[in-house]
Amino acid sequence: MNIHVLSLFPPMFEGVFQHSIMRKAQDKNAVSLNVVDIREFADNKRQVDDYPFGGGAGMVLKPEPIFNAVESLAPKSKRRVILLCPQGERFTQKKAEELATEEELVFICGHYEGYDERIREHLVTDEISIGDFVLTGGELAAMTVIDSVVRLLPGVLGNADSPIRDSFSTGLLEHPQYTRPADFRGWKVPDVLTSGNHGKVDQWREEQTLKRTLERRPDLLEKIELSDKQQKIIDRLTKEK
Amino acid sequence: MNIHVLSLFPPMFEGVFQHSIMRKAQDKNAVSLNVVDIREFADNKRQVDDYPFGGGAGMVLKPEPIFNAVESLAPKSKRRVILLCPQGERFTQKKAEELATEEELVFICGHYEGYDERIREHLVTDEISIGDFVLTGGELAAMTVIDSVVRLLPGVLGNADSPIRDSFSTGLLEHPQYTRPADFRGWKVPDVLTSGNHGKVDQWREEQTLKRTLERRPDLLEKIELSDKQQKIIDRLTKEK
Repeated sequence: MNIHVLSLFPPMFEGVFQHSIMRKAQDKNAVSLNVVDIREFADNKRQVDDYPFGGGAGMVLKPEPIFNAVESLAPKSKRRVILLCPQGERFTQKKAEELATEEELVFICGHYEGYDERIREHLVTDEISIGDFVLTGGELAAMTVIDSVVRLLPGVLGNADSPIRDSFSTGLLEHPQYTRPADFRGWKVPDVLTSGNHGKVDQWREEQTLKRTLERRPDLLEKIELSDKQQKIIDRLTKEK
Repeated sequence: MNIHVLSLFPPMFEGVFQHSIMRKAQDKNAVSLNVVDIREFADNKRQVDDYPFGGGAGMVLKPEPIFNAVESLAPKSKRRVILLCPQGERFTQKKAEELATEEELVFICGHYEGYDERIREHLVTDEISIGDFVLTGGELAAMTVIDSVVRLLPGVLGNADSPIRDSFSTGLLEHPQYTRPADFRGWKVPDVLTSGNHGKVDQWREEQTLKRTLERRPDLLEKIELSDKQQKIIDRLTKEK
């Protein structure tokens, strides 16, 4: 997969793109990451923003530098051009899975300002928001989307780190996990986990998964098809509350 | 504000913490950012994770290195210890505003693995998730939360970048913005914005704000108190659809 990121602050990407999973994914040739400085596509004054028509505070990103930067990239017929903005579609694991099937993704990161509306109307294919909070720019949102997509590409994660059991991959929150020491400062691991009885461990984990989801994210339970066994556990947990 | 981040990959933070708003906020002494390597608080084998009790794939972060790292920081009575995890409370602008009033925040970032449950039960004060998607670690979630908090600290943003008019600060999505050129490749700015009639501009913007919110995020309209005038516009827009 080829990923291009358009930004006014390219050095922001250095730490994240050169370590951990992003480093690994590039070393394995699963992805190529290219950061483009939007300023290089502005006119000779390097002006990337301007006052909004109609007045008002704040500056607005001009259309030309963004169009020019996207058009400078070797064109791929099926490429997706993604704008990170608070007004976009809410990013979810399903969207990450969809984007992971593409050959080329282009991310446009604004900074401080708004975008000229013509970028939205005539250049981008997807508008994505990572949540209802305000960030200084699109850079962190882009890194977040890219991380969640890249880790799904074939060969990037080892078997031990398989994405299958993660929260949201099953549609439920994960059960509590414990590791050594069995007694830490007097706080002990639940007996069932050290019992050696695999059937009971599985049962405890299934129940804890449902309990945690019911307590913290009951909305998730409405989105998945529960088995009869799971439904019985939910009914009992609801009664106990 | 003092911010400490516990991570297994401290270099990931370099780009984001040393540029743009984070650089500015540190130069103005509005925030001090400290990244702590969790491995330095592990035993002499530098082992930070271990197999889960009860079996299963994946590794689990051990409690000792995390407790030791947090306890090594000069204690502040009112400090918040925040765990980034998919099971946490959904991060919102309201939470950012709440955290921006604190003196000290500690962020714990896991990587690949789950956390030993005792970290959750006996050390952290807040569990935060930035959304329903799977990330490789808590690092990008921590940077995201930190960016949205730091930009709210007094003196960090200039007046021109005032956070007041942002999406979510008003509870509504922002209206479209346009800047020069008035005609870009034949795509023209709406006439009203170049009319010089401020009353009409304000009216157009208010209507566009409501229209966009109605189309993209009708859930936001239920969360705020609409004025009679706003309600009339909404009624008309709904009828037109």
